[in-house]
Amino acid sequence: MTVSSVLEKLRGSLRPAQLDHEETTLIEALGRYAAEDVKCPHDLPGFDRAAVDGFAIHAEDSFGASPTNPIELRVVGRVEAGASPDTVPTISRGEAVLIFTGAPLPRGADAVLMAEHCTQLGEIVQVRRQVRPTENVSRRGEDYMAGETIIRRGTRLKPWHIAALASTGRTRIRVLRRLRVGILSTGSELVEPGQSPAPGQVVNSSKPMLICLAIQEGCEPVDLGTLPDDIDLIRSRLSEGLGRCDTIITTGGSSVGEKDLVPEAVSGLPGARFIAHGIRMRPGRPTGVAIAAQKPIFLLSGFPVAALAGFDALVRPTIHYLRGTRPEPQATVRGVLSRRVSNHAGTRSYLRVRVIATPDGCLVEPLMLTGSGLLSTLTKANGLLVMDEATEGYDEGQVVEVQLIDNLWHANGDADEFL
Amino acid sequence: MTVSSVLEKLRGSLRPAQLDHEETTLIEALGRYAAEDVKCPHDLPGFDRAAVDGFAIHAEDSFGASPTNPIELRVVGRVEAGASPDTVPTISRGEAVLIFTGAPLPRGADAVLMAEHCTQLGEIVQVRRQVRPTENVSRRGEDYMAGETIIRRGTRLKPWHIAALASTGRTRIRVLRRLRVGILSTGSELVEPGQSPAPGQVVNSSKPMLICLAIQEGCEPVDLGTLPDDIDLIRSRLSEGLGRCDTIITTGGSSVGEKDLVPEAVSGLPGARFIAHGIRMRPGRPTGVAIAAQKPIFLLSGFPVAALAGFDALVRPTIHYLRGTRPEPQATVRGVLSRRVSNHAGTRSYLRVRVIATPDGCLVEPLMLTGSGLLSTLTKANGLLVMDEATEGYDEGQVVEVQLIDNLWHANGDADEFL
Repeated sequence: MTVSSVLEKLRGSLRPAQLDHEETTLIEALGRYAAEDVKCPHDLPGFDRAAVDGFAIHAEDSFGASPTNPIELRVVGRVEAGASPDTVPTISRGEAVLIFTGAPLPRGADAVLMAEHCTQLGEIVQVRRQVRPTENVSRRGEDYMAGETIIRRGTRLKPWHIAALASTGRTRIRVLRRLRVGILSTGSELVEPGQSPAPGQVVNSSKPMLICLAIQEGCEPVDLGTLPDDIDLIRSRLSEGLGRCDTIITTGGSSVGEKDLVPEAVSGLPGARFIAHGIRMRPGRPTGVAIAAQKPIFLLSGFPVAALAGFDALVRPTIHYLRGTRPEPQATVRGVLSRRVSNHAGTRSYLRVRVIATPDGCLVEPLMLTGSGLLSTLTKANGLLVMDEATEGYDEGQVVEVQLIDNLWHANGDADEFL
Repeated sequence: MTVSSVLEKLRGSLRPAQLDHEETTLIEALGRYAAEDVKCPHDLPGFDRAAVDGFAIHAEDSFGASPTNPIELRVVGRVEAGASPDTVPTISRGEAVLIFTGAPLPRGADAVLMAEHCTQLGEIVQVRRQVRPTENVSRRGEDYMAGETIIRRGTRLKPWHIAALASTGRTRIRVLRRLRVGILSTGSELVEPGQSPAPGQVVNSSKPMLICLAIQEGCEPVDLGTLPDDIDLIRSRLSEGLGRCDTIITTGGSSVGEKDLVPEAVSGLPGARFIAHGIRMRPGRPTGVAIAAQKPIFLLSGFPVAALAGFDALVRPTIHYLRGTRPEPQATVRGVLSRRVSNHAGTRSYLRVRVIATPDGCLVEPLMLTGSGLLSTLTKANGLLVMDEATEGYDEGQVVEVQLIDNLWHANGDADEFL
């Protein structure tokens, strides 16, 4: 099955999760997903105010004013930022009030003349420019009107959303509970980070990577541990994990060999059914996807690059589907391919590439080493070239779009620094 | 002064900060900046191992094998993942060992024949395909060699860096202390978030936005509060902030009017000098940059959009300069401009735009409302079109590159949902 048909089947079989809400402070809400539509409770700004320092006037009084034909108005007061609109003087035609940025506009005034376009001489101000009505005035409700929606449910909150929430007078917001992503590694050769591997053993590196990927997607990772290739242990840990998590990712043992016990362990869970086992992606062909207890289980490869590809192709879109959110736009760059790359037809392939900025644009160099067990192909790369199912390959010299996973290199020698 | 000349002058006047190091767990290090070059302490993997399930053999024994001409080898043992390389059988020519992915390669073997290319019949395995030496073997040191640099100082740690660190057996890493960014707002009309504004007052929204921007850049925000337009209060708070922070951002009162007291307050700090006051950027022309106690002080506008532009143009590059790091690549998209936009020559301008995905590519619509005091121009936009100093404007229909600050909209009706 192709990646897209697996995703389609998953969406057809799962309903978005009914996530609880949590209330957080505004700063804590940065990067979280809004659980509610937020409407503005009152007009913002709440009163007409000066957008510059100058003189609040009746705009018509300035009509015809110019440096050679200044118009004189009588200064009848002064209003500073923070003053109450109730205490601000009312002006009549021919009058002006000295006003500062942010201060409420006097009644009778409909524009602010910038300080640099006039000169105050005692109780008189000489106006050297005409202004339009509303010019340099920030009008009541201009930013948001009472009842206007500021933030939609499902929005990932950015610094300006936090600012807009603050400006309405709120100090807290309800955000979606983090989706809990269980991560269970299997493999008799694996030890947990922190344990010393005996000869023949290796430290589990895919689990910490997946924990970090889950965190980056705004989820709460649940570490379900590292188990040897023992079907009963795996099944009981999966069962326990399903009780605590919204979805589970397993690594290792996902293929069809004698030691590939995860598919069988998953099949033994009550009501479990496989959506796919064997997916047209590279790396990561032995990947599987199942559903148990209405929750998706992703059987990813134990090889870290294949696990990353599985997360990117399958887990991330499913997380957003379950949460009712959309993935953030990713950094990409276009560059010229330094050598031909081929793709197995009907397969989605993840190539690790090095993108080098040159004075003539970017050069995209596929890495020579490609093993899906090699973390170095990720730490030495700065881009992923994703070839979709319809692509048979790209020619040398072709312009391709690359997903940037790190900074660009520069051909001026900085590159060597990173080799 | 232009933005780039201000940055050049800043770099000429400041030295990168000597930041202390902090030791964190690997997961906590995600998104932090490495304080050290990390070298691999030993070869990874530490031993030759099988990359697939199958039979470990001497590759030459398979030469000439094909489905019509299978070659028979004698099965002399079995080795599972996690077994010690010391206990693994040695094979002689004509012999094979059943082996599982991740298991150490027996001495005498130099390749692994995939299980699907052979059939075991009792103590005999029929080989139907020839393999090259090293085929399906993950060789010792293939990922990282002992002494090889895995991570350079200054790298922002990604999930695969965390995985690579784990694979070396490490559980902790030294990262750079977070740069402390002080944020001080001024303006007699402002109240802190959480306080009810009296008539004529407004809630300070720029400060929470800048706090969030600092967090996103991997810094520790230091809230220096909101002060009225009082020069002594401002100067003494700045002085206190310089003792605690690596850099300070002020908002409001940065222009040249009677109530713009921040420049004077900064000038009164011991040894303070201005790099620039008045910068060719829009919004944010009254922005200032000074240095005191060898630390940069950014005098940004109180208007939130201008403050964002000032952060993007000046603060972010300076943070990276001080920390010795590089900004992350940003998400961008190319689209066709829906109407002409003009730029003041020699000015860097930030236009808020709406980028809409259509079947024919992206359409870039500049927002009609542009006030630098309007947060809604950010929450209703999904992109920033940055026009640099050399650009006089862009024509309708021209292809422009936009910095995405939120998801693309879609012309199929999803767009309405976000209007």
